[in-house]
Amino acid sequence: MQTITEEQSKQISDLMKDFIEQTINLYDTLPMRPVGCPADQKTLAYLEKLPIPNQERPLSEVFREMLQDIYASTLFAQHPRSFSCIPSTASLLSWMGDVMTSAYNPHAGCQVNAPVAALIEKKLIRWMCGLAGYPEESGGLFVSGGSIANLTALTAARDAKLASEECKDATIYISNQTHSSIAKALHIIGFCKDQIHTIPTGRSFRMDLSALQAAITDDIKRGKKPFAVIASAGTTNTGSIDPIADIAALCHKHNMWLHVDGAFGASALLSKQQRKKLARIELSDSISWDAHKWMLQTYSCSVVLIRNQENLVCSFAAHPEYLKDAENTEGCAEFWDLGPELTRPARSLKLWLTLQAMGSEKMGHVIDHGCAMAKLAEDIIRKSPGWEISSPAQLGIVNFRYAPDQAMPENALNQLNQDISKKINESGFAQVFTTQLLGKTVLRMCTINPETTKQDIHDTVARLVRIGHACTMPFTLSA
Amino acid sequence: MQTITEEQSKQISDLMKDFIEQTINLYDTLPMRPVGCPADQKTLAYLEKLPIPNQERPLSEVFREMLQDIYASTLFAQHPRSFSCIPSTASLLSWMGDVMTSAYNPHAGCQVNAPVAALIEKKLIRWMCGLAGYPEESGGLFVSGGSIANLTALTAARDAKLASEECKDATIYISNQTHSSIAKALHIIGFCKDQIHTIPTGRSFRMDLSALQAAITDDIKRGKKPFAVIASAGTTNTGSIDPIADIAALCHKHNMWLHVDGAFGASALLSKQQRKKLARIELSDSISWDAHKWMLQTYSCSVVLIRNQENLVCSFAAHPEYLKDAENTEGCAEFWDLGPELTRPARSLKLWLTLQAMGSEKMGHVIDHGCAMAKLAEDIIRKSPGWEISSPAQLGIVNFRYAPDQAMPENALNQLNQDISKKINESGFAQVFTTQLLGKTVLRMCTINPETTKQDIHDTVARLVRIGHACTMPFTLSA
Repeated sequence: MQTITEEQSKQISDLMKDFIEQTINLYDTLPMRPVGCPADQKTLAYLEKLPIPNQERPLSEVFREMLQDIYASTLFAQHPRSFSCIPSTASLLSWMGDVMTSAYNPHAGCQVNAPVAALIEKKLIRWMCGLAGYPEESGGLFVSGGSIANLTALTAARDAKLASEECKDATIYISNQTHSSIAKALHIIGFCKDQIHTIPTGRSFRMDLSALQAAITDDIKRGKKPFAVIASAGTTNTGSIDPIADIAALCHKHNMWLHVDGAFGASALLSKQQRKKLARIELSDSISWDAHKWMLQTYSCSVVLIRNQENLVCSFAAHPEYLKDAENTEGCAEFWDLGPELTRPARSLKLWLTLQAMGSEKMGHVIDHGCAMAKLAEDIIRKSPGWEISSPAQLGIVNFRYAPDQAMPENALNQLNQDISKKINESGFAQVFTTQLLGKTVLRMCTINPETTKQDIHDTVARLVRIGHACTMPFTLSA
Repeated sequence: MQTITEEQSKQISDLMKDFIEQTINLYDTLPMRPVGCPADQKTLAYLEKLPIPNQERPLSEVFREMLQDIYASTLFAQHPRSFSCIPSTASLLSWMGDVMTSAYNPHAGCQVNAPVAALIEKKLIRWMCGLAGYPEESGGLFVSGGSIANLTALTAARDAKLASEECKDATIYISNQTHSSIAKALHIIGFCKDQIHTIPTGRSFRMDLSALQAAITDDIKRGKKPFAVIASAGTTNTGSIDPIADIAALCHKHNMWLHVDGAFGASALLSKQQRKKLARIELSDSISWDAHKWMLQTYSCSVVLIRNQENLVCSFAAHPEYLKDAENTEGCAEFWDLGPELTRPARSLKLWLTLQAMGSEKMGHVIDHGCAMAKLAEDIIRKSPGWEISSPAQLGIVNFRYAPDQAMPENALNQLNQDISKKINESGFAQVFTTQLLGKTVLRMCTINPETTKQDIHDTVARLVRIGHACTMPFTLSA
C-alpha cells in the first residue's frame, strides 16, 4: 500500500525546505526574540479539543499547526539568555546531524545493521575515554541522557562489587548536592533509601572528605558493606566538583567503585584551562557525560564511560536466537551487550559531524567562554549594592541573592528572590530560576551557551537588580 | 563567541535543502535499490584513520563525507524487502517530525519547558490507553524503546507488589519466546536468574497456561512469592500472542502483576481486523508499545502504558530543589516523575504529526497489510516443494524452512537454511535472517513495511527457492 502519494512527497520536500530556511533564520535572530513564547490559552484549548483524526488531513494545514501552535510555543532552552536548569547549547550542526540520522534511521544496536555508525561511535568513545585518561580496556556507550548513563554505570558497579546476597547490606555514598537521578537509579536497581548515605558538603559545596571517611568506617563497624561513592564533576546547583583524587584514594583503600557523575561537568575535559579541575578523574571506575549539555548537541546525546568495558558486558550481555545472524564474528561486544537498550538510534553521528566541522579546540573554547560568563556575572553582582554571592562561579554556574536589608526575615528574603525570578521569566528577556542553598532560596545562572555575550550578562544582571529594587519599593513597579 | 559564522549558516541552509531533495528521492527509489550498501573496506579504513580534528574543516567536505561514507553505507531497515529482526517502518512524515522537533529541541521533562509538547504527549497517551481499554486513572510515558518501556513497567510492578524484604523470594514468569529485554530489565532491577521461571510454549508458541499454573502453585508451596507474569503480544520470533485473558485471570487470582510486552504487537490495536487477537489486554497492569516498530516512526519512539499512573509516580518521583520553579502548580505529575529519565526529547510530536496527516484508519490498514503480506508468503511457501512452514503467519511474521530431503541430518538442514539466508542477504535484493525454533534453524520474514508489495513477497520467496535449489545442487551455483 502507498502511505504517501507522489504529490505528498513533493509537498513534504517543499515544506521542509521552507522549514530549513525558517529555522536558520530563527537561530540567527534568537537573541532578539523572547526566551520563550508560551502557548496562549486559546491555542492550548484548540489543541486540547483537536482529535486524532480517522481520515487524513491536508499536510500543509498539519504542518502550519505543528509549526505555529506546537513548536513555536516552546521555551528556547538554547536561547543565549536561557540561564535556568542546564540550558541547551544545541547547535545548527547537531541539528544537521539529526536531520541526516533520522532520514537514514540506522539501527545502532549492532554492527551489521550500521557498520559505519558503529565505527564512529567506537571512535568517539575511545576519544572520550582518552580525554578522561582511561586505559585501553575502557569503553562505553551512547545513551539517551545522564539518568540512563548513571543507571548503566551503577548497575555495572553493583554487579562488579556485590554478590547478590550482599546487596541488602551494601551502602552507597552521595553528597547533598548529588543529582536526583542517582537516587532514582539506585532505587531502580534495588537499593533502599536507608542504604544511601548523604554526605554533607563544605562551604564550596564539595563533598566533605572526613565525613565520607567517617561514614564508611562507621558502616564497616556496623557490618555493612560500603561499595560505591558517587562523586559529582559539576553539580547542577552550583557547578561544584567533588575532590575526585581524595575520594578515589578512599575507594581504592576500601575496594569501592567510584562513579563520577560528569553529566554536566565532564565536558571541562575539552578545555586546556579547565580540565585540571577534574584532575585524577582517570582513577574513577565510570563516568557519565552528557554531550547534549555542554557539547552543543540536541537531546538525547549522552555517554557512559567505563574503566573496564568487560563490566558492562557482564551486566548487560544477552544472546537471543533471532539476533544470531546480526552478531559480529570478531568476538567483540555489540552495543546491545553494553547497556539497557537493544534497538537504539545512532546518537553519536551528530556529535561526530559537529566535531569534524568545528574542531575540538573550538569546543574547548566553548567551555572557557561559559566559565568566563559566570565569572563576569559574579563580578557584576559583587559590585551591586544589596546583592550577595551565594556560591561563586564554578564551571559556568553562579548563585546569588538579593538581600538589601539584613533585618528582613529569612522567609521574606526567600520570597523576594522567588519574586525576582518570576518577574524576569515573565518578561521573556531572560530565564533565571531559583534554587535552594543552605536552606535559602537563591538565584542561579548557568551561562554555558556559547552565543551568550558579555552584553547579555550585563543586561540580565542589570534587569535583575532593577526588578529587585522595584520589588522592595513600597509600591511595587512592574519589571 | 560565534560558533557558526554567517557564511556557514548560509551553507548549512543550502546543504540541508539539497539533502531534503536527495532524501525524498532516496525514499521514492528505495524499492529499486539494494537493501543495504555495506561500507567497503577502503571507506572503513579511511574512517578508522580519520582523527577528530583540532581545527575546523570545510563544512561541504564534512557533509559529503557524512553522506557518502557514513549514512549511505547503512542497511536500510525501512527498505520494503528488509524482512529481518523487526524492520523499520519509518515514514517521511516521522522524519519531518524529527527535523522539526530537533530544530526546536524542546525539553520534554516537564510542562513549563514545553507546555504544548506536554499536552500532545498526554493526548497521545490517553488515546493509546483508550485503544488498550484502560480506565481513566491510567497513564504512561514516551521512552526511547521497548527495553526501557519494559524496565519502567517492571520497576513499577516490583514496587507495587513487593516489600523490599520480599524481593529475594519473589518469582516472575516469562515464556521461552519472551523478548530478551525482559530478562535484562529484571536483572537490572535486582532479580536473579533463578527467580525467573521460563514457561514452555505450545505448538503455536503461546505460553502454556497449565504449565504456568503449575509453576505458580509449586512456587507458592516452596514458600516463594509469585508476583508478575510477562505476556507477549507479538513475540519477536513468530509473532505469537500469549493467552492474555487466561493469564490475566491467573494473575487476578494470585494478586500478580500482568505486564504485556506489546513492543511489536500492541499496534494491532489500531486494526479493526486484528485487535480482537489482543482481547482482554485491558486486564493487564502495564503494556510496552513501540511506535518505531509498526507505527511508521523513526527510532526512538516507544510508549509504556500503565493501568494506574500512580504506580509510576510511586516508583519514579523525585523532587530536587533546582527543579522547583519548573514544577507545575496543578499537582499533576511531571514526566520526570513517571520514568527513569529527567531530560527527554519530545518523542511524541512526530507520532502526532504522522497521525494528523495520515489519519488513524490508514495506520490500521498498515497493520492489516503487514499481516496479509505474511499470509501471502506463507501461502506461496506452502506450495513450494521441499519447503515447510515452521510457524504460520502471525501478526506479520512467518517462519519456514527448506527441507528438500527428510533423510538429511538435522545439522545439515540447519546449515542449509543458514546458507540460504546468507546468500540472499549478500545479494542485496532482500534481507531474511534465520532464527531458532524448537531447536531448528529456520528462516524468518517479518513483513510489516507498508510499502512491501505482493510482488516483493513473490520475488523474495522465488529467490529463496532458487537459492535453496542451488545450494543443494552437486555444484553450487551462485544466487
